[in-house]
Amino acid sequence: MFMYCAALQYTFAQSDSVIIRQLFNEVLMNGKCYNRLDHLSNKIGGRLSGSIQAAQAVEWAYQTLKNEGFDSVWLQPVMVPHWVRGLKEEAHFLVGSTKTPVHICALGNAVATPKKGLQANVVEVKSFEELVSLGKQNIAGKIVFFNRPMNALHIRTFDAYRDAVDQRSQGAIEAAKLGALGVVVRSMSSNIDIYPHTGAMRFADSVIKIPACAISTFDAEALSKELKRNQSLLFYFKQNCEMLPDVESYNVIAQINGTHKPEEFIVIGGHLDAWDNGDGAHDDGAGCVQSMEVLQLFKTLHLKPKRSLRCVLFMNEENGLRGGLKYAELARKYKENHLAAIETDAGGFTPRNFGVTATESQFLNMQKWQHLLKPYGIEEIIKGGGGSDIGPLKVQGAALISFIPDSQRYFDLHHSETDTFDKVSKRELELGAGNIAALVWLLSQYGL
Amino acid sequence: MFMYCAALQYTFAQSDSVIIRQLFNEVLMNGKCYNRLDHLSNKIGGRLSGSIQAAQAVEWAYQTLKNEGFDSVWLQPVMVPHWVRGLKEEAHFLVGSTKTPVHICALGNAVATPKKGLQANVVEVKSFEELVSLGKQNIAGKIVFFNRPMNALHIRTFDAYRDAVDQRSQGAIEAAKLGALGVVVRSMSSNIDIYPHTGAMRFADSVIKIPACAISTFDAEALSKELKRNQSLLFYFKQNCEMLPDVESYNVIAQINGTHKPEEFIVIGGHLDAWDNGDGAHDDGAGCVQSMEVLQLFKTLHLKPKRSLRCVLFMNEENGLRGGLKYAELARKYKENHLAAIETDAGGFTPRNFGVTATESQFLNMQKWQHLLKPYGIEEIIKGGGGSDIGPLKVQGAALISFIPDSQRYFDLHHSETDTFDKVSKRELELGAGNIAALVWLLSQYGL
Repeated sequence: MFMYCAALQYTFAQSDSVIIRQLFNEVLMNGKCYNRLDHLSNKIGGRLSGSIQAAQAVEWAYQTLKNEGFDSVWLQPVMVPHWVRGLKEEAHFLVGSTKTPVHICALGNAVATPKKGLQANVVEVKSFEELVSLGKQNIAGKIVFFNRPMNALHIRTFDAYRDAVDQRSQGAIEAAKLGALGVVVRSMSSNIDIYPHTGAMRFADSVIKIPACAISTFDAEALSKELKRNQSLLFYFKQNCEMLPDVESYNVIAQINGTHKPEEFIVIGGHLDAWDNGDGAHDDGAGCVQSMEVLQLFKTLHLKPKRSLRCVLFMNEENGLRGGLKYAELARKYKENHLAAIETDAGGFTPRNFGVTATESQFLNMQKWQHLLKPYGIEEIIKGGGGSDIGPLKVQGAALISFIPDSQRYFDLHHSETDTFDKVSKRELELGAGNIAALVWLLSQYGL
Repeated sequence: MFMYCAALQYTFAQSDSVIIRQLFNEVLMNGKCYNRLDHLSNKIGGRLSGSIQAAQAVEWAYQTLKNEGFDSVWLQPVMVPHWVRGLKEEAHFLVGSTKTPVHICALGNAVATPKKGLQANVVEVKSFEELVSLGKQNIAGKIVFFNRPMNALHIRTFDAYRDAVDQRSQGAIEAAKLGALGVVVRSMSSNIDIYPHTGAMRFADSVIKIPACAISTFDAEALSKELKRNQSLLFYFKQNCEMLPDVESYNVIAQINGTHKPEEFIVIGGHLDAWDNGDGAHDDGAGCVQSMEVLQLFKTLHLKPKRSLRCVLFMNEENGLRGGLKYAELARKYKENHLAAIETDAGGFTPRNFGVTATESQFLNMQKWQHLLKPYGIEEIIKGGGGSDIGPLKVQGAALISFIPDSQRYFDLHHSETDTFDKVSKRELELGAGNIAALVWLLSQYGL
């Protein structure tokens, strides 16, 4: 009996490895993701929620998926914020009569400065603790300059990002509480360069809204150096951004019905919206075209998943998360059973890991598949997975899985004008899609 | 006794992990490799053996290492070939009176065409078998177009390179045997683009030397397509390259003496020469500055290796290997005991593996260190290591070790004008240097 089981397992494993090889052969020879990303990045470009480009991206994705003839393709309506940057921002610092121009951009969701701009003295801080210790007497009437760098000692750059990003997301609230007039935040970037990196910031209802911008790391260093010499320097910036009324947009969804357990869903998704300053190739055009490719590969190779597969292109991950929340809300409403959700939103770089948040036994089951993915660049299936858009599915018991590509270059370009198509490697993008498809194949056949 | 040993081992392992963390802290915060690569790439540039730039690179590396005050720094003289490209190459194909220009470059070591260029009919082949089967009657008087692509299905791009590169290295010999007038070789590139990739080719003493060039993959596809329609098209190319007399050049070597076994050497090396069309940032400027950084880190952190460390910057890897051969020749002559040699010559990309060619027990010893490197991106120490420059040390029993970074983007730029400094990520370069330094630390303390 033991021998029989072992033989049976071998047969399974062998046929899986053959199918996985077919997935990679197909994506590496005939994959559509790279050309699709070219279109999304170069023909449509940056596509922030509510923009014309976001609407074009929805239409393009819907038509593209529709044309492939999946079992169902539909748009899931969702109201999204509509923030616009307005005219290009301007900034400099002033010592005596000497102006030094610096590179800034408004943070996402930020308010405008007065029309003539905002000029004030600057207080540099590295943390909220330091800010609070300075107190109202030192902060009121000034611009707060948050200048804590991403910590280069973290080997995974996402850890450095998590450690630094409170300055961007919360800085304007904390500074306004002490009477600051505006905030300037050092860009969340691994590099020293001249590109400002935008990203979402929040306001609190009870706190006055003050203008907030990101400054390039190069200029942050220059400003900090000058401040050490001259604490009375003046910083000037002007931005015209504005939050308009919400508009209707859509999650774009395509489905292949499962053959045995069609009522169990596996979601593969990325977000279709992208910041307006670059073309959103890595964040998260790559994740969108990889998610589309997974269904494409099943279709082309006539693979029949036992469970149903859904490619979900979420809207508004960047500055509101409305799409992810809407998808989960409707999944609850219709009592849909989500077995697992995989998010690819860490750039189209070379594959390294899958991260998993699930029960211990589910995790151990998935780890057994590790050897099938290792030849294709997944070194290990590790604990800890999820993602902004799929996070809300956790309450329904879905296993949350992150596709984790190499992270070293992501924050060089994340949310900046350097996030463009030419930074994406065709092979790296395709290997990512192949590995996600391989994992989806195993999940669809064996469940958890 | 067992407990005692276990405790002792734990102490060792713990202090190693602390030292390795220090190595990474130092390289990520204060590493010199990125700025040095900037200099080597942008101030010196492409530096083929025998060129002024190669001499400048030798001088710069020598002075840089000398200034750091290592125990010894010296130049090891070696005669190297001196091949020059001459004027920029020209090429097109001709159908009727319609000229289609194509992007080519002379292969390294190639001979010139006649001054007015070479024009002839073209025969496309995918392999030497196909070439031979066509025979003299179909080949004589023509230009042979070798057009077998790198096989995208290999997950490691070096495997695809190895499968395709015979066309470049041997093609002119095989074609000349059948009376061909010249050869055009599809560039060894993972991408379809307009950049020709050069690289070394050989001649055989008994076979006439015919001109050989590389054509960009984009143009190779166009030429192939046109040939299907029109077998009588004419291909024209002109190149002015020339092999001048050998000149004296140098391997650049720096040494830190071991404290306990100074007579055992660990070599860390890359090659200082680089093709003339790009600036040689990845191939192999990255390997050079990483090798320099390893000694730098030991010096800065006051780490005392038990065995002696040598940074060796080899000359002439690209078109002759004279430096690697000379180093091994002198090591034999002086009966130097080389414990291990590590080569970094696969680009400055994100770290993935070390590859090892050694005895089984040496390999197993090294594998035990794997967990110490894993937090820094080395997923596994695997079998199979070496490199062109360190290969000749094998006869002396040195363990041969390759640093293996991610390979997906290497052949996009290898040997082409796109191999430039802006393609190198500071963090990826530094993580590579850190991992090599960590392995060298362990080797220097424990041997094999």
